[in-house]
Amino acid sequence: MRTLKLGMVGGGNGAFFGAAHRAAAAMTGRFSLVAGAFSSDAVRARESGNDLGLDPDRCYADFETMAQREASRDGIDLVAVVTPNHLHAPACRAFLSAGINILCDKPLTATLDEAHALQKVAEDSTSLFGVTYTNAGFDMVREARAVVAAGEIGAVRLVRVAFPQEWLATATEATGNKQAEWRTDPARSGAGSLGDIGTHAFHLVEFVTGLTATSLSAEVDTFVAGRRVDDNVTAKLRFGGGAKGLLWASQVAIGETNGLKIDVHGDKGSLGWTVEAANQLTFAPLGGRRMVIDRASHGTAFKGLMPPGHPQGFIEALARLYIDMAEQIEARRAGRAAAADALLLPGIGDGVRGLRFVDAALRSGAEDGRWTDI
Amino acid sequence: MRTLKLGMVGGGNGAFFGAAHRAAAAMTGRFSLVAGAFSSDAVRARESGNDLGLDPDRCYADFETMAQREASRDGIDLVAVVTPNHLHAPACRAFLSAGINILCDKPLTATLDEAHALQKVAEDSTSLFGVTYTNAGFDMVREARAVVAAGEIGAVRLVRVAFPQEWLATATEATGNKQAEWRTDPARSGAGSLGDIGTHAFHLVEFVTGLTATSLSAEVDTFVAGRRVDDNVTAKLRFGGGAKGLLWASQVAIGETNGLKIDVHGDKGSLGWTVEAANQLTFAPLGGRRMVIDRASHGTAFKGLMPPGHPQGFIEALARLYIDMAEQIEARRAGRAAAADALLLPGIGDGVRGLRFVDAALRSGAEDGRWTDI
Amino acid sequence: MRTLKLGMVGGGNGAFFGAAHRAAAAMTGRFSLVAGAFSSDAVRARESGNDLGLDPDRCYADFETMAQREASRDGIDLVAVVTPNHLHAPACRAFLSAGINILCDKPLTATLDEAHALQKVAEDSTSLFGVTYTNAGFDMVREARAVVAAGEIGAVRLVRVAFPQEWLATATEATGNKQAEWRTDPARSGAGSLGDIGTHAFHLVEFVTGLTATSLSAEVDTFVAGRRVDDNVTAKLRFGGGAKGLLWASQVAIGETNGLKIDVHGDKGSLGWTVEAANQLTFAPLGGRRMVIDRASHGTAFKGLMPPGHPQGFIEALARLYIDMAEQIEARRAGRAAAADALLLPGIGDGVRGLRFVDAALRSGAEDGRWTDI
Amino acid sequence: MRTLKLGMVGGGNGAFFGAAHRAAAAMTGRFSLVAGAFSSDAVRARESGNDLGLDPDRCYADFETMAQREASRDGIDLVAVVTPNHLHAPACRAFLSAGINILCDKPLTATLDEAHALQKVAEDSTSLFGVTYTNAGFDMVREARAVVAAGEIGAVRLVRVAFPQEWLATATEATGNKQAEWRTDPARSGAGSLGDIGTHAFHLVEFVTGLTATSLSAEVDTFVAGRRVDDNVTAKLRFGGGAKGLLWASQVAIGETNGLKIDVHGDKGSLGWTVEAANQLTFAPLGGRRMVIDRASHGTAFKGLMPPGHPQGFIEALARLYIDMAEQIEARRAGRAAAADALLLPGIGDGVRGLRFVDAALRSGAEDGRWTDI
Repeated sequence: MRTLKLGMVGGGNGAFFGAAHRAAAAMTGRFSLVAGAFSSDAVRARESGNDLGLDPDRCYADFETMAQREASRDGIDLVAVVTPNHLHAPACRAFLSAGINILCDKPLTATLDEAHALQKVAEDSTSLFGVTYTNAGFDMVREARAVVAAGEIGAVRLVRVAFPQEWLATATEATGNKQAEWRTDPARSGAGSLGDIGTHAFHLVEFVTGLTATSLSAEVDTFVAGRRVDDNVTAKLRFGGGAKGLLWASQVAIGETNGLKIDVHGDKGSLGWTVEAANQLTFAPLGGRRMVIDRASHGTAFKGLMPPGHPQGFIEALARLYIDMAEQIEARRAGRAAAADALLLPGIGDGVRGLRFVDAALRSGAEDGRWTDI
Repeated sequence: MRTLKLGMVGGGNGAFFGAAHRAAAAMTGRFSLVAGAFSSDAVRARESGNDLGLDPDRCYADFETMAQREASRDGIDLVAVVTPNHLHAPACRAFLSAGINILCDKPLTATLDEAHALQKVAEDSTSLFGVTYTNAGFDMVREARAVVAAGEIGAVRLVRVAFPQEWLATATEATGNKQAEWRTDPARSGAGSLGDIGTHAFHLVEFVTGLTATSLSAEVDTFVAGRRVDDNVTAKLRFGGGAKGLLWASQVAIGETNGLKIDVHGDKGSLGWTVEAANQLTFAPLGGRRMVIDRASHGTAFKGLMPPGHPQGFIEALARLYIDMAEQIEARRAGRAAAADALLLPGIGDGVRGLRFVDAALRSGAEDGRWTDI
Repeated sequence: MRTLKLGMVGGGNGAFFGAAHRAAAAMTGRFSLVAGAFSSDAVRARESGNDLGLDPDRCYADFETMAQREASRDGIDLVAVVTPNHLHAPACRAFLSAGINILCDKPLTATLDEAHALQKVAEDSTSLFGVTYTNAGFDMVREARAVVAAGEIGAVRLVRVAFPQEWLATATEATGNKQAEWRTDPARSGAGSLGDIGTHAFHLVEFVTGLTATSLSAEVDTFVAGRRVDDNVTAKLRFGGGAKGLLWASQVAIGETNGLKIDVHGDKGSLGWTVEAANQLTFAPLGGRRMVIDRASHGTAFKGLMPPGHPQGFIEALARLYIDMAEQIEARRAGRAAAADALLLPGIGDGVRGLRFVDAALRSGAEDGRWTDI
Repeated sequence: MRTLKLGMVGGGNGAFFGAAHRAAAAMTGRFSLVAGAFSSDAVRARESGNDLGLDPDRCYADFETMAQREASRDGIDLVAVVTPNHLHAPACRAFLSAGINILCDKPLTATLDEAHALQKVAEDSTSLFGVTYTNAGFDMVREARAVVAAGEIGAVRLVRVAFPQEWLATATEATGNKQAEWRTDPARSGAGSLGDIGTHAFHLVEFVTGLTATSLSAEVDTFVAGRRVDDNVTAKLRFGGGAKGLLWASQVAIGETNGLKIDVHGDKGSLGWTVEAANQLTFAPLGGRRMVIDRASHGTAFKGLMPPGHPQGFIEALARLYIDMAEQIEARRAGRAAAADALLLPGIGDGVRGLRFVDAALRSGAEDGRWTDI
């Protein structure tokens, strides 16, 4: 098994998510980081690459140059795009042009127009394209999807998802917090809580239920004075087939660090999952008892590499997406079908869905909660 | 301390909630059951009274006769009305005419018109009037209200309430279940999940936050084929002052026996409570740690009679409402103000609010979720 | 159904547990309180009876007089003995002599010698005798016993029980706290945490498993300086048949108000229960999934009167013991066998077991944890 | 920052823990795997190395050869010893002789004699020596230690630890399960549950409390017929200073996959942690409220690299020990003191303590629970 060559755009010193990506890629044993355009600041880009022990020749000051140079025979097999949202589209375009595979952070782009345009380019390219909706990498989220797909909860009636966080409960962006600054700057982020965590929540709903949301009625609020983006969203959802949904995403929910939670109610049973107890799934069959499905359970569809009961964490979940991408790359090169699991890696279509959700929510919110197509 | 004389309308043999009322009233040590019109079936009414050891002369075949006879000097001090919903209004009218104090189950009536009419009669009468939104009797629900009122979570931004149950997940009403029959019969119940548990959820929201909901946008569903009332409701709420809310009430949520849950998010903190852990409140202050406030906590505003850690159950909560009513009755007779706690007993105004909620939700649901005044 | 006449010894104004007994007895609808010797202080005894609305002629200054007078044809059917521990034996003897049925608080007596002597007297008497190990009244504790008895967890290998409380973490007895004073006074209590909560824990173990503990090895500590009784006990247990156990009882465990918890591990499954979530039982079968058995579960052996999911509290559990006693009394009078459930009421033999446990633990603790027969 | 060169002994294809070590080392970004003696089977050793992409010249058939060859200037900086227990001592001796730093799995050795002998050799060597008590790598375990060290719970009175697992509840070793085979073979494992998980539990107790256990009284059982090692242990502990403890380790606890749990009770507060909710610590101060300390809490002593609320998993915990070792290696080379955190890496002394615990427990168990010095 040959190690794949990984490049990174963004994620320089001080950026938090780039380090998580590097740890996740490294722990898979399938990727070696060999190139990067770690920062739009040339000095910082070079220093970051140096600190990571990279060849200075492969530490680039901009992603365009990186894409061109790495397009050669010995270039990178995959680029991870971990910049602020507004740079996703141009960065991805550059690597699509170069025929390089991409793993891009969510939201796919800052705006829906960018997303649609990027999707077209991607569909015309030869690159594989993954989007890091990280929760799709948790074993028990995949198990939840499998339980629904197997009909164990019957036809879905109602799904609820909540993603509360507290870190923007006050005007954090006015305190010099870099993360807060760009994530509340419409020019760089697109939207606020909608894009940052709403897209996670929305993806989780469609990923677990296998349903497609057709329309929504949203209430989009900004509770912190002076903030330029939304920080709290509540929405009702409608799905094809008659299922209904409730979604809440908030970055002003004090006491909640990262309380993503979903529950799905069908006509034969229900299930629930939260990232706060990521190694368990609750399941209740009609006429039976509530039970816990854990990573060790007899009969779970997905089992991690770790022994039963040893908790799977956030970086392991992200690593799972890298493993999926590695499998897709290797399968394509070998001219074989990729393993079914690897196809659970969210793709550009899922990325576009996220922006459609954001756009629909903003429009519905602006029109007093009018039901709006997604 | 003289024992107060209690009468009951409804609650004969086989009805479940009458027995809970009798146990609750008895455990307070403040009431003795002395009279009743336990059933609209004269034979069953008499048998029920006999089984309870009552004087046959005070076991009535109908509530009109009971109200007239008990209106005398030695008559009952309080009547508990525990009939199906459609009989609440006529029964209450009879006892209001007789000047007898009333404790009536929720929803106050089957329809909003009945509720408004009853409220007028009640306001012109001398009777005290309580409504058994039982959750308002839990120590920790009262503590939650006190925490909000004391400003500990600051200005409320968002409140969520969920009341899922599973018992009508299938067509239970077609199986001979008496409870399911009348609760899904529009003529007797008024509405379905909206009236039966939605009113509980709505009251809890206003009770804990001290806010008044001004409008709602609701999605009202009937998931079980052939059912004549709603069995699942999702709604967005707006409150005076800019707070927002989400409400879910469902009787088709498999795995949920009685999962009432509320969380309130303010600009200085948040709190949460669920009847499944009724003796605890979770609380998170801005910049602090999530903590548990329990019935034993140092500094709680309300303490039960029981020692710390000994769980308070459903009947104790109902008993608290009887204690409140006893205090109101005695205070009025003594010409003094009732203790502040006793005024937390929900009144007819709270009962009317419940019907306004039901009515607004039905209208909003019928108009595609249009924002509708409550 | 005739109401039974109840008397009470102890439990006057200011005593906390008497009020719980009265509420529990009243809520059953089976007992009326008609007599009492509520305090060893004659004035306070009379005032307490007056406050409770009793006939002054049946408010006695001492339990001997009460027993004699109530021994008549119209006397009480049952006496509840809720005094400090050292008075249990003389009070019970008085009522046994009078042929009156007894429900006595735990521990049965202050010393093992008293317990043995009392047991002999009781066995020669015609009185029914119950001991209020209250936890035996929780539906889910009875369900746990039934699950074990049905063989669902197979042969028991290990049982753990813990009963931590915090209320004596400091020298509470020096602060004027009456409860702390008598409970830490060897002359009135017998032992400390061993008698007060260790006996609860020990009874729960034998009640749930159906096993008899044969010996123990105990470590008995007093952590608070100046305290005259034990406040923390750890013990290993051995049972007939080879099962082993661990027991912990502590009144110096900060953060724990009343954290009674048991888990039982067999060769085919395991189960767990805690009073903090008294309405649920956890159960895990070999090769299956962990699940929750709740009061609403399909197939539970015991079901309460309340609807599914409505929590059962401490006073309801105590009320169950009163219901059991009422059934035993009525069955005996009717010359029929009592319902099987009613025989789950702990009897004097269970009371003696508690003292044997206390005595064995004190001896083992004094001999460096030597294995000591119970 | 130069990458350190890592070697591995054991952990070939099919062994589960080697893969976890490789993932953990890789995700730190501080180590590159360059050499290994992955199996005592020469063919399998070579194939494993090949699968991992190693230079065939550095895939050794035995650890003695590996130690000699890697002792050169360009040899490995660290060896991870992940063999069955009985090979730990000879493997470590070989690398100590070569002056190579070691990270060895627990238990340190199969027997106490081996442990003592190895400790002498290690103390005379220049090698750094770490032992992978993995739980010591969880942020919140380190936080727990810091909370105790800061005096926030005062003087420790009682500590309880439980480590239940279910995987040996039946005769798993007779089913062809390789892990079960060697872990229940006295010649390869030394002891059963005592060595495999008892040592984890014992280390956690001393690590969190900072106390030294002086003696124990143990009950050592084998519940599965035919098993050659212990599978369930209960023990009382005594510590210097008067604190007491209870320990339970079991591999026959059905329903428990990996339920390690500790709670520590002091005279000013208490705390608790379980690997099942590894990102939280519960804390209760005297006179205050129970609260949750999480990785995001304001004022926690240790914070992970990940954002608040994103769960830290088992491999991240193991990675922390690799980070500690990297820091120790680099600090020594730079002639500076290592960062304080890095010294929390368990050392050979902690490894020896584990064997002293096992040995004392086996002797105490054989002598009917006699208190035995550790």
